Amino acid sequence: MDESKRSFLKRSVGVLGAAGLMGTGAKKAAAEPPGVPPSMKVPGAGMGEYGTPAKYESKITRTLIRSQPGTTGSGASRTPLEALDGMITPSGLHFERHHSGVPDIDPDQHRLLIHGMVKRPLIFTVDALMRYPMVSRIHFLECSGNSQFLYQPALPNLTAGQTHGLVSCSEWTGVPLRLLLEEAGVDRSAQWILAEGADGAAMSRSVPMAKGMDDAILGLFQNGERLRPENGYPVRLFLPGWEGNMSVKWLRRLKVVQAPIMTKDETSRYTDLQGDGKSLMFTYPMEVKSVITRPSHGMTLPGAGVHQITGIAWSGNGTISKVEVSTDGGKTWTAASLGAPVLPRALTRFRLPWKWDGSASVLKSRGTDDTGAVQPERDKFIAEHGNNAIFHFNGIQAWSVAANGEVKHVYA
Amino acid sequence: MDESKRSFLKRSVGVLGAAGLMGTGAKKAAAEPPGVPPSMKVPGAGMGEYGTPAKYESKITRTLIRSQPGTTGSGASRTPLEALDGMITPSGLHFERHHSGVPDIDPDQHRLLIHGMVKRPLIFTVDALMRYPMVSRIHFLECSGNSQFLYQPALPNLTAGQTHGLVSCSEWTGVPLRLLLEEAGVDRSAQWILAEGADGAAMSRSVPMAKGMDDAILGLFQNGERLRPENGYPVRLFLPGWEGNMSVKWLRRLKVVQAPIMTKDETSRYTDLQGDGKSLMFTYPMEVKSVITRPSHGMTLPGAGVHQITGIAWSGNGTISKVEVSTDGGKTWTAASLGAPVLPRALTRFRLPWKWDGSASVLKSRGTDDTGAVQPERDKFIAEHGNNAIFHFNGIQAWSVAANGEVKHVYA
Repeated sequence: MDESKRSFLKRSVGVLGAAGLMGTGAKKAAAEPPGVPPSMKVPGAGMGEYGTPAKYESKITRTLIRSQPGTTGSGASRTPLEALDGMITPSGLHFERHHSGVPDIDPDQHRLLIHGMVKRPLIFTVDALMRYPMVSRIHFLECSGNSQFLYQPALPNLTAGQTHGLVSCSEWTGVPLRLLLEEAGVDRSAQWILAEGADGAAMSRSVPMAKGMDDAILGLFQNGERLRPENGYPVRLFLPGWEGNMSVKWLRRLKVVQAPIMTKDETSRYTDLQGDGKSLMFTYPMEVKSVITRPSHGMTLPGAGVHQITGIAWSGNGTISKVEVSTDGGKTWTAASLGAPVLPRALTRFRLPWKWDGSASVLKSRGTDDTGAVQPERDKFIAEHGNNAIFHFNGIQAWSVAANGEVKHVYA
Repeated sequence: MDESKRSFLKRSVGVLGAAGLMGTGAKKAAAEPPGVPPSMKVPGAGMGEYGTPAKYESKITRTLIRSQPGTTGSGASRTPLEALDGMITPSGLHFERHHSGVPDIDPDQHRLLIHGMVKRPLIFTVDALMRYPMVSRIHFLECSGNSQFLYQPALPNLTAGQTHGLVSCSEWTGVPLRLLLEEAGVDRSAQWILAEGADGAAMSRSVPMAKGMDDAILGLFQNGERLRPENGYPVRLFLPGWEGNMSVKWLRRLKVVQAPIMTKDETSRYTDLQGDGKSLMFTYPMEVKSVITRPSHGMTLPGAGVHQITGIAWSGNGTISKVEVSTDGGKTWTAASLGAPVLPRALTRFRLPWKWDGSASVLKSRGTDDTGAVQPERDKFIAEHGNNAIFHFNGIQAWSVAANGEVKHVYA
């Protein structure tokens, strides 16, 4: 019985279900079960205190790309988007971006100070924070440097995750910052808050007071458990929809101030040099965006027939209202289905079955959010912003599918 | 500056915010930051391919309780509910229940057969399944033996997780079973499906066809990544809202049949012996239930003042519509807030601030679902079902709070 994948996939192309959208992957079988597999003949392994992925999935990892040679903790690691499905990113694969590595912080020793333009400067232990009212929200987090390779004329020879994997999505649980600012007696004339991390880089950003009083969270839990060290353990700032760098990890200090502090992290970095030589500053929300994760660069389709196109879409300005997919390089578009629940400032899974005729094709996805913003074609984005910048790229990603099934990054 | 937790909590009891619901955990601080902590003076650790929890959280594990002495893989491990927050359970802490351990299954070798009363018996590789349309759903999974200690007159001396931690909640992604049954040409007169696992116990259950054609999923992903081995890698059946045992892991075979097969796993086990000596069979949905996870058995409140009561509620029959909390043993009830999104057959986080006056109290939570079902008091549940059974306990959990702050399991 030849069960090699390629042969039976070819033979079953015609076996479509009622909807004509079947995966075409099944093979006709004998009516009786195949032989008893080895796994049924021996007792299995015991239970574990804390589980890990299957050994057969050991290649599914974050990709480490170090941006500062000679350092161990400066750079970024990216989520392997092409290997995942659904909306949630497992915390072990959440992207990382550090400026001086992951600090070792004993939660019993950690303190968070709220000071500056407040009536009552306050200092909190982690145990004290745990006594405040909390909220849980499923939100994406995206580094503003995500997809930066697409600013360049040269095609990146990278997977979907290596290219766009500085975005992840978790359920974040923590204390609304507003409650603590109110308890401290915040001066209502103050317009900004300085947030400082307890890492070796003393990561510092100026945050508008309006955001702090709106949906900002002091994050304590990620996907049900306490924050992971690389995500700010024991407490981080979380600013839904805004560039990840502002959600300061290992948060030690919030200083209420009148004007932006102009820290190194918002002048030398995290500003967007435009084509005309001017820089944009304080570009906070991550704009509407999407990417097809399967099929994507580095995969090979096993043959013509029905394939499932899937990917993720998100917008820092609101909720995804539509994702359209093109298989002809953008000439025609079809609305994909969106996975429920569609939540504001969260990854949204989209899916579309595709009957591939075996000819060369170009796949694209285009996200639209509930503000009406539409993800732009890359050409248009570059024409508007130039290619000096490395932040806030949200142009459309195109993947070419060759007649032999090979999928590659393409500018089209 | 004395920052010991107990002392400043006591001193700050009166510091309530505008809403009067503050955590009372803050301490007045000097206006300037405390000294620079050690973590800011050295570079942090490097990035990792697959992250793990902080070393300071190493005690947060599943609790292994082996039900068959002398075996390594038979029994159950429970989710530490009291240490978690939000709706999602991290996959590493998802409960386990195995009858012959966790089989080692190479996904390239695994086959799933659909046979019996079908026009076209079909056999699938995992790669073939991956080519079908998928859906993602956030659902709880609960072992029918969860909370079984509460059938007994003796109080369990166990934490919330050790008592009720055979429930967890994940985002499950997979192929709707209906699609594959239709492709196989299922005989519309067939009423049942036998599901068999590829483990040493050959776990086998009879599943009503109606469920298989409704919301049953062939699960391939859990919380974004491929299933964990202890949750059925590479493919499991998933039946939303139904007793966990029926969501057969390591699924190798679905046989369409006319009547239940009466396997060992649905006769000697997973039947519910009632007080009158009769047994209930085929009791599938997990009834409406809730439990307060903080405060809970084994914790000590640091003193009178405002505390946050939080917990989880769920119903296998639908969506949680209300969770009420009592702090006086059930005399009076207050509606808790429910964390959004409230999803069908998913854990729902509830929260209620509580101003504790320092006197002995009894905490209870009571869930209601959108079918109108209300979680019963334990006394009423036992009077109705007796205490011979070990499955499907959904009575109300009470925790006593002593004047010294100690929280304990109580029947009240």
